Amino acid sequence: MSLADTVDLLRRTPVVVAALLDGLPDAWTDTPDVAGGWRPRDVVGHLISAELADWYPRVERIIADGTTKPFDTFDRFAHVERDVDVSLDRLLDRFAELRSLSLEHLEELVIDEADLDRRGIHPALGEVTLRELIATWAVHDLDHVSQIFAGMAGSHDANVGPWKAYLGILLRRDDPAAVPR
Amino acid sequence: MSLADTVDLLRRTPVVVAALLDGLPDAWTDTPDVAGGWRPRDVVGHLISAELADWYPRVERIIADGTTKPFDTFDRFAHVERDVDVSLDRLLDRFAELRSLSLEHLEELVIDEADLDRRGIHPALGEVTLRELIATWAVHDLDHVSQIFAGMAGSHDANVGPWKAYLGILLRRDDPAAVPR
Repeated sequence: MSLADTVDLLRRTPVVVAALLDGLPDAWTDTPDVAGGWRPRDVVGHLISAELADWYPRVERIIADGTTKPFDTFDRFAHVERDVDVSLDRLLDRFAELRSLSLEHLEELVIDEADLDRRGIHPALGEVTLRELIATWAVHDLDHVSQIFAGMAGSHDANVGPWKAYLGILLRRDDPAAVPR
Repeated sequence: MSLADTVDLLRRTPVVVAALLDGLPDAWTDTPDVAGGWRPRDVVGHLISAELADWYPRVERIIADGTTKPFDTFDRFAHVERDVDVSLDRLLDRFAELRSLSLEHLEELVIDEADLDRRGIHPALGEVTLRELIATWAVHDLDHVSQIFAGMAGSHDANVGPWKAYLGILLRRDDPAAVPR
């Protein structure tokens, strides 16, 4: 894993999410990925929370304190009350601003290959490396953005008729192990 | 389901896929979504095949022949040999060109709400409506683009350390029913 390649992906996420959602009709954006799950706006809210309180703050903690001070815990549901009156388009802008700031800060730290082996303490997982933290930042983006697609597909579940049998993204909302024809 | 809302999504897909993949380092793009599955380039190749031989040609078949002539069968693996020497960036351009052409043709047909109830014959599924075909076109985009995210995440499976326990997109590559912590 190279730091530059990972930052390349991190830079793309707000662009991808905006290309998908900015100005998109509500018909596509009001459905959660699974029953009781997250709508696209919840996912973007969660990505905002993670920029504020998870990724870059943990990078700083590793650099400043190493394994002497664990990461603060992270509230996965911070968006629920915070964003209740915020439009999806505004959330997209906010995420883009925060991601851009995080990457600026990361660049100012001038992390080199040796730094990536530095260690911190995750409150539940124990010892982790800076390399693992930065890789997880990127894969977490991919995980949650793919969740947006499931919610969007779910919004049109009733419209595809018999083709549903071929569409794994719909079948898996009911049964995660479903295999399309 | 409104035709305009669906076309809005169909227009976005090539933009989203290019924002994600155009010029992205190979470290992110050489891994299939699951063992034996598709890499991002295979997904884009399949989306190209569907523009060429599936979606718009089937719209035309419904308008021209209704239920008197079934759709031609569609080869889901047409990309495998066709695209073997084509770069990912070139595939992205090709997909964008073809999607743009399809939507131009669709617009020229001047489909109205009543037309969406017109019927055709799918070779395996039987009678389907134009409405279902167009909804499936969009949900099929979402299904396959989300597959790209799984392959990209999989390329960094070995880099996230103990965080893998939280990352459903990685856990489900090994066990579709896995539930992250």
